[in-house]
Amino acid sequence: MHVVLSIGGSSIIPEGKPDIAFLKAMALTIKKSKNSFGILCGGGTVARTYAAAARELGAGEYEADSIAITSTRQNAQLVMAALAGAGVDVYRRVLTDFEDAKGPARDNKVVVMGGTIPGITTDTDSVLLAEAIGAQRLVNISNVDAVYDSDPRKNPSAKKFQKMAYDELIGLAASSDKRMAGTNFIFDMLACRLIARSRIETHFVSFRKMADVENAIEGKKHNGTVVSS
Amino acid sequence: MHVVLSIGGSSIIPEGKPDIAFLKAMALTIKKSKNSFGILCGGGTVARTYAAAARELGAGEYEADSIAITSTRQNAQLVMAALAGAGVDVYRRVLTDFEDAKGPARDNKVVVMGGTIPGITTDTDSVLLAEAIGAQRLVNISNVDAVYDSDPRKNPSAKKFQKMAYDELIGLAASSDKRMAGTNFIFDMLACRLIARSRIETHFVSFRKMADVENAIEGKKHNGTVVSS
Amino acid sequence: MHVVLSIGGSSIIPEGKPDIAFLKAMALTIKKSKNSFGILCGGGTVARTYAAAARELGAGEYEADSIAITSTRQNAQLVMAALAGAGVDVYRRVLTDFEDAKGPARDNKVVVMGGTIPGITTDTDSVLLAEAIGAQRLVNISNVDAVYDSDPRKNPSAKKFQKMAYDELIGLAASSDKRMAGTNFIFDMLACRLIARSRIETHFVSFRKMADVENAIEGKKHNGTVVSS
Amino acid sequence: MHVVLSIGGSSIIPEGKPDIAFLKAMALTIKKSKNSFGILCGGGTVARTYAAAARELGAGEYEADSIAITSTRQNAQLVMAALAGAGVDVYRRVLTDFEDAKGPARDNKVVVMGGTIPGITTDTDSVLLAEAIGAQRLVNISNVDAVYDSDPRKNPSAKKFQKMAYDELIGLAASSDKRMAGTNFIFDMLACRLIARSRIETHFVSFRKMADVENAIEGKKHNGTVVSS
Amino acid sequence: MHVVLSIGGSSIIPEGKPDIAFLKAMALTIKKSKNSFGILCGGGTVARTYAAAARELGAGEYEADSIAITSTRQNAQLVMAALAGAGVDVYRRVLTDFEDAKGPARDNKVVVMGGTIPGITTDTDSVLLAEAIGAQRLVNISNVDAVYDSDPRKNPSAKKFQKMAYDELIGLAASSDKRMAGTNFIFDMLACRLIARSRIETHFVSFRKMADVENAIEGKKHNGTVVSS
Amino acid sequence: MHVVLSIGGSSIIPEGKPDIAFLKAMALTIKKSKNSFGILCGGGTVARTYAAAARELGAGEYEADSIAITSTRQNAQLVMAALAGAGVDVYRRVLTDFEDAKGPARDNKVVVMGGTIPGITTDTDSVLLAEAIGAQRLVNISNVDAVYDSDPRKNPSAKKFQKMAYDELIGLAASSDKRMAGTNFIFDMLACRLIARSRIETHFVSFRKMADVENAIEGKKHNGTVVSS
Repeated sequence: MHVVLSIGGSSIIPEGKPDIAFLKAMALTIKKSKNSFGILCGGGTVARTYAAAARELGAGEYEADSIAITSTRQNAQLVMAALAGAGVDVYRRVLTDFEDAKGPARDNKVVVMGGTIPGITTDTDSVLLAEAIGAQRLVNISNVDAVYDSDPRKNPSAKKFQKMAYDELIGLAASSDKRMAGTNFIFDMLACRLIARSRIETHFVSFRKMADVENAIEGKKHNGTVVSS
Repeated sequence: MHVVLSIGGSSIIPEGKPDIAFLKAMALTIKKSKNSFGILCGGGTVARTYAAAARELGAGEYEADSIAITSTRQNAQLVMAALAGAGVDVYRRVLTDFEDAKGPARDNKVVVMGGTIPGITTDTDSVLLAEAIGAQRLVNISNVDAVYDSDPRKNPSAKKFQKMAYDELIGLAASSDKRMAGTNFIFDMLACRLIARSRIETHFVSFRKMADVENAIEGKKHNGTVVSS
Repeated sequence: MHVVLSIGGSSIIPEGKPDIAFLKAMALTIKKSKNSFGILCGGGTVARTYAAAARELGAGEYEADSIAITSTRQNAQLVMAALAGAGVDVYRRVLTDFEDAKGPARDNKVVVMGGTIPGITTDTDSVLLAEAIGAQRLVNISNVDAVYDSDPRKNPSAKKFQKMAYDELIGLAASSDKRMAGTNFIFDMLACRLIARSRIETHFVSFRKMADVENAIEGKKHNGTVVSS
Repeated sequence: MHVVLSIGGSSIIPEGKPDIAFLKAMALTIKKSKNSFGILCGGGTVARTYAAAARELGAGEYEADSIAITSTRQNAQLVMAALAGAGVDVYRRVLTDFEDAKGPARDNKVVVMGGTIPGITTDTDSVLLAEAIGAQRLVNISNVDAVYDSDPRKNPSAKKFQKMAYDELIGLAASSDKRMAGTNFIFDMLACRLIARSRIETHFVSFRKMADVENAIEGKKHNGTVVSS
Repeated sequence: MHVVLSIGGSSIIPEGKPDIAFLKAMALTIKKSKNSFGILCGGGTVARTYAAAARELGAGEYEADSIAITSTRQNAQLVMAALAGAGVDVYRRVLTDFEDAKGPARDNKVVVMGGTIPGITTDTDSVLLAEAIGAQRLVNISNVDAVYDSDPRKNPSAKKFQKMAYDELIGLAASSDKRMAGTNFIFDMLACRLIARSRIETHFVSFRKMADVENAIEGKKHNGTVVSS
Repeated sequence: MHVVLSIGGSSIIPEGKPDIAFLKAMALTIKKSKNSFGILCGGGTVARTYAAAARELGAGEYEADSIAITSTRQNAQLVMAALAGAGVDVYRRVLTDFEDAKGPARDNKVVVMGGTIPGITTDTDSVLLAEAIGAQRLVNISNVDAVYDSDPRKNPSAKKFQKMAYDELIGLAASSDKRMAGTNFIFDMLACRLIARSRIETHFVSFRKMADVENAIEGKKHNGTVVSS
């Protein structure tokens, strides 16, 4: 079975310093699994530092996105190194195009990517990678441990979802979308729509809880959220 | 000034037969203008025929999008032929990557593209092309003559907008988005958000009203809708 | 054994509507066979519609060929979808370069292509694909069921060939070549010369007779024509 | 006006030793002309040496062609060096794809190519280059000074053509084509057909007569052959 | 006149934070100059952080170099943003291949690159860029203000060179090369040999002394070192 | 185990005529071995002829290197043909980028390359190929049978090394480096440093002594030189 992992940049390189322990743990988890994997890496603080500098120098949003995408690919190189170091049969090239992922994925090699084009998030990229390689499960690994009905860092009584239908997730994303700019929902609207159109079972877990990550990968019960039809 | 034109597939090849008259008129309009142009072409009926056949053969949404993108590029070849035939200084290659558009656009050559990757619409592609080449005006040319508060083909009392703010357009797209699948708003949500983030003045006009198209291109008053901040 | 199939565009999408039944039958035939396959797809009516429109807009023959090649590639996408849908181990990318076919072919994946460059026919492309991947058999699948000494649609007493030597086919192509423009022989002169230089056993069968197609693929007796040394 | 020059490999590197004098003379001729140029270089003895060795090692015709194409590109690098050395505004990259020639040609840069794909001759490549960049004149520069009705090296009374129609050239190529393998006509059949379809005025001159080369380039009278409609 | 600037990563992003003031000053200096420019960017601390993490995860030197090259390209994106922001006619794509630099450089666009392949330094890359675009002057901008006969940070009586011949620089690089690993000379041995083979006038100045940078660019007297024949 | 072979151009095509016997012997040796191979081919006399002609026409060192690299790739095509002819599972494309070698090498296909970029030698390229594909052994096959402390063709009492440490080889390369231009040491300085940094066991043997070549490939005792830590 093909599984796509979407790994947040802040999990890979929190505060500008690669989290070697997490990367090694992640690689071992993949090594142990019988599934095949596509991995989509996010940006994080280095991405944001470069994007902010580009804007300060006069760049527009397209160029700011472009320079941040470079960080997602550099993070992907790091994940690739971790996997190779753990003896995983990883394709030794960070891909920049979903099409290139199909061949290695069919040969059951782990493929690793960063972002693709400006204007879309790595959430969306991860779903497109899943569609491209025919993955029916997507695991979103970030610094939030599940989907909540409001931001748990601000609202102590925020309700965590254990299971959700695609439409519920879309509804939640839409209502979050209406709030002020800067309020990011855990998964962007387009990504939500794409998992719905292709019926991809999607799990939300925290990189700080490797047991949840492992269970999500294998489709077992965990403390995060599962979205399905 | 750089202007991006987003031309619907049904304008280029309605009912599977290229509209030579429209293509020649469009080319002449561009020839006469002093602006520089990026052009993004949509799919239309041939695209939908191939996509439907692919699905019938077992393909998923990603592959259906891919085969439809081929049609958008073939339409772009046709638009390129029309421009070359009219003596326009058009870049003689249909581009598939926004990055490749920057160089020719800076040399004031007209660049022509179709879609880029599965999962995003040619609406979104047109805004990303605008961002990439630094166009501050976008003209959406389709078979609908303006933005309405409801579908004018179904609701005779639908109200046409002459001017809108980005937020109004986003609001309208969001409320349309909630309706049943298949109800397409004139511009997809992501495209709406992207014109807002880059403050791109966006015009909606019909390909059946070339005077409106010309006026929109030059930033003059017309019978369609203008969205700006 | 590697076998190349050259499938005419009019077999894939007769009158602008994909022939789902033929595509599924073709895919099943390939699925059942123990051979490895390279597939070269032709253009058909959509290709001709776009090429004619391009010429009407002022394009030359090179550009008309280019826009038609896009259709051959779109047809190839459809054939690829049919094969994937039938569970065939098909390489999931329509190739545009013979060189790219070698690797997947050696891994016994089915490779699918459309045309390559203007000025040469998909007949010629199919022979070059055969040479590139080392196929010793080529099956030409079109709407004509065999090689005849004159056009069977015009001459009811046209003689069908069951077996021919390369030189005979070349002689026939040459004498057809002398006639007025527009009179197309079943296989173009360059393609004839290339199968001769590489001693590729070539079969001509109709897409309407799947039993003949199957037999030709396996090198068994059929109602079409076999050309060999 | 765009002119394509097809320069035989034996003119560039006769007997494995580059003809510096010819290359410098050719570059000066181009430097002096007001026309824009596309140049297509042939192979010659080095190409034949490598191709023969490849066959001796077991390679087929496709691979033999491929290794010979590398020589045509190396010859093109030499021609590029000669042009750069003479101060010609030459595009500093040997092209391998006709599409890449369009942009630089439109900017009036001289473009230089070798062969493209196996199975077609550099004669054919030169016509396709002419079509791609819109050249209406083609000058074939080889070690034969004109088109003759039979091989002048074998038949002292061979008749030289001063002017020919496309159909006459095609007829001559066809009758030559019937002879034994190894008897090469000055221009291959497909190339003949392609100049006819695009009405490209084609001149045949010898590299040993630079005055003829210069006159052919400018469309003036010379001692070779002119083919036109 | 073409001038190549080799800008150290520690000048662009000292301590992981882009030096906006330096980048703006650099861009203005380029904007004011009448020369044409090729710019080669180094890595710096982010590059070293990622390379160290890769090694810690088990990567070899080739992979460590690869991940560091990504940082050089990200720095190049930042320099490109600074130039675009200052209104410089910069080619809007970070190049990864010297060949791609030739065309834009001939059109007098500023080209920006990072490193190219593992195993060679950005010093060497900068000289190859200079050779490729025909630059006869190279300005090395780093955190050292000149060439010294020993490390000025360790040896207070280190002698600064104002002028040097290529052989002297090579001799100095060779004797530095003999010392313990980790002792880096200001310009690597291969880079020294390449400026010598192509007689490229090379200036060494500090990014902290913009007046020196400006003078070096214009070939005027400055407080750094000039190496020539 | 992965082994890289660096084969000198003068071994492949001495005096402009391919050495078929050597190529066949080399292919058989590879066929018999249980190791996996990466092969890096040098230039030889054809490369030097073209490079000299380019310089005579005014080209600089970068362009002279570029035209010579084409010969290394043509030699690689010949080696590929020899391997295919001997039934070796060779990747059927001459690679130009180390990254492309990783995938086929991991699938235990033999990969064949020529040079990569101007300014670095094929010695260096061979070490980078070894690093890229993780080869721990490199066999340098040239017309010199071992490493000597001085040129054995000039000094009859030159001492041959049977074993050397990396530092000894570097020391020897450095002292050779100081001599006059044109005095080439058997392995260039950068290549020496790279085998040292990645601890690649390196063998120097002559192409005239196939028994030595075979033993070196298998890591057995031979009459050439072994460099290790």
